[in-house]
Amino acid sequence: MKYVFGVDLGGTTVKMGLFNESGEVLDKWEIVTVKDNNGAQILPDIAASIKSKVSEKNIATYDVIGVGIGAPGPIDSEGNIYGAPNLGWGTFNVSKTLSDLCGFTVRTGNDANVAALGEMWMGGGKGFKSIVMVTLGTGVGGGVIVDGKIVAGAKGAGGEIGHILVNPHETETCGCGKKGCLEQYGSATGVVRLAGRRLAKDDKASVLRGKEFTCKDVWDAVKTGDEVALDVAEEFGRILGNGLGVIACVVNPDAFVIGGGVSKAGDILLEYIVKNFKETTFRGCRETEFKLATLGNDAGIYGAAKLILG
Amino acid sequence: MKYVFGVDLGGTTVKMGLFNESGEVLDKWEIVTVKDNNGAQILPDIAASIKSKVSEKNIATYDVIGVGIGAPGPIDSEGNIYGAPNLGWGTFNVSKTLSDLCGFTVRTGNDANVAALGEMWMGGGKGFKSIVMVTLGTGVGGGVIVDGKIVAGAKGAGGEIGHILVNPHETETCGCGKKGCLEQYGSATGVVRLAGRRLAKDDKASVLRGKEFTCKDVWDAVKTGDEVALDVAEEFGRILGNGLGVIACVVNPDAFVIGGGVSKAGDILLEYIVKNFKETTFRGCRETEFKLATLGNDAGIYGAAKLILG
Repeated sequence: MKYVFGVDLGGTTVKMGLFNESGEVLDKWEIVTVKDNNGAQILPDIAASIKSKVSEKNIATYDVIGVGIGAPGPIDSEGNIYGAPNLGWGTFNVSKTLSDLCGFTVRTGNDANVAALGEMWMGGGKGFKSIVMVTLGTGVGGGVIVDGKIVAGAKGAGGEIGHILVNPHETETCGCGKKGCLEQYGSATGVVRLAGRRLAKDDKASVLRGKEFTCKDVWDAVKTGDEVALDVAEEFGRILGNGLGVIACVVNPDAFVIGGGVSKAGDILLEYIVKNFKETTFRGCRETEFKLATLGNDAGIYGAAKLILG
Repeated sequence: MKYVFGVDLGGTTVKMGLFNESGEVLDKWEIVTVKDNNGAQILPDIAASIKSKVSEKNIATYDVIGVGIGAPGPIDSEGNIYGAPNLGWGTFNVSKTLSDLCGFTVRTGNDANVAALGEMWMGGGKGFKSIVMVTLGTGVGGGVIVDGKIVAGAKGAGGEIGHILVNPHETETCGCGKKGCLEQYGSATGVVRLAGRRLAKDDKASVLRGKEFTCKDVWDAVKTGDEVALDVAEEFGRILGNGLGVIACVVNPDAFVIGGGVSKAGDILLEYIVKNFKETTFRGCRETEFKLATLGNDAGIYGAAKLILG
C-alpha cells in the first residue's frame, strides 16, 4: 500500500490526514499553528508530525508518495507563496522548504483552491472535472479547477472571486479596500447587511425587526416565508447569480460547488442563486450545475492529498 | 522536417497555413467556405486542400504531425462542436470527421480560443503561458489560455467574455438577447453608442457632433483631445477595466492581450483600460500586464498549428 499526507494549514490549527492511494482517510489529527517568530516553526512542526506518524504506523518511507499542503496565501503552481500575513510569512517556496524538512515530495496550493480540488475529487463536485468552488463564510473565497487541475494564476490569485466587483455603486468599503466586492454581499456579514438595508427601507413586519440577528436567522426567516427575508434572499440571489454568471462565461465549468457557513441554509440558497443565474447568464453557460459542498472542514486535507495523487 | 497545418475556418473563407515544427509559416492560402447544404462540403473541401498541398510540396504523409483547426462555435476539449448556425452545422465531432477525411491527426478549438492561443505563442502574448485574449471587433470575443492550454469549458463556452454582465441597468438589448453585456460597450458599435449617449447629454462642442461617425473617428478625436471623446474613452476604460478586473480575479493571467478592430486605436486604448483596471481590481491581480495583439488575421492559423504542436 502507498500513502499520501494531506495538510491543511490554518491560522490556529494544522489539520492533517493520512490517505491511501485510493483516497481513503486512514487517520486524521491536528497540531497547533505556532505563529511566533514569523511562523518559523510551522513547517518544521508539520514535518515532525509527518515523520512521527510514519514511524507510529510503521510505514516504509518509500511507500509515501508525497505530502500535499494547502496554505492561506497566494501560491502559484510552483509552490511559491507571495506572503501570508496571517502566519507572519514572506515570499518563499513552500514545497521546497517542507520537502527539505520532511524528505518527501511536496506540492502546495492556496487553501481555498486546495479545498476546491478536494470537493471536486470527493465532495459536492464528485464526477466533474471542471468546477468553481464558492465558499460563502466569514469572507467569500473560491477555487477554480479546470480539467482536474487548480488554476493557481500568475501570482497565486486565481479563484480570488470574493473580490470581483459586483456593484460599482456601493458606498461602504470592503476589507480589501475596494467597494462593491462580492464578499460584501455573499459573506455571513454581507447577508446580515443586506437584511439591515432591506429593513431600513420600510416598516414591513418581519421576525428580523428590532433585534440583533445572524445570517442563519435570515435564512431561517426565508424558510418560514417572512416577506422581508424573501426580499433579502432575492437580492442575495441576484448578486450571486450575476457574479457567478460572469465567472461561468470565463471558464464554463461543469458545476459550481457552494460551501462555507452561509451555504448551511441548504438547497433554498441554491434555488435563489440558480433562478437569477439562469435569467442573466449567457445561454452557452446557462446549464452549469449547482451543488452544495459536502466535505466541510475536511475539504482541505482531501484536496491536499489530491495535489499529490494528481 | 516535420509539418503542421493550421486552419482558420470562417463564415466566408477558410484561411490555411503550412508550418514547420518551429512555428515558421512556409505557405499561406485561402479557400472559399461553401455553406450550401448545411455546410456539408466544408470539411471535405479543407481535407482536399490539405491533401493537394501535401502533394504540391512533395511532403511525405508521415512527416505531417497533424492539422489544427479553429471553427466558429462552442467546441469542447474533445473537438465536439455544439452547433455553428453561421455554417449550418449541428452537433458533431469536428476532429474525428476531418481526421477521417484527411488521414491526419486533427485537433479542434473555438476560433476565438484558437486565436488566443496563437497570440500567446507568437503574438502579443509571446513569453507568457497564461493569457486572456480580448477581441474588440464587430462583437467582443475572447479566449482564456492557462499554462499554455485553451480553457474550452464544459460546453465550449470558455472565454465567452463578450457576454459577461457589466451593467445591470442597461435598457437596450444585446445581440445575445440579454442586457448589459460587455459587447454592448467594447465592440466598434458599442463605442459609437457610448459616444452617441455622451453627445446627447449636453451641447459641448465636439468634432463628433452633428454627423455620422465611426469607432475610429471616436478614437481619433480622443487623440486630438476632444473633450467629449475623452469622456467616452474614460467610460469605455471604466467598463473594460472593471470587466477585465473580474476576469483577472478568476484566472489571474500573466497578461491580457487586446485585439480586434477597435484595438487599432493602439496604446491610448490600453491606457484608459489599464488606469481603470488598476483602480478597481483586487490588489493580488493588479499587476497583470496588458499587450496589444500583433498577429491580426493570422492569429487563427498560428493558434491552430499550436493546437497540434502542444
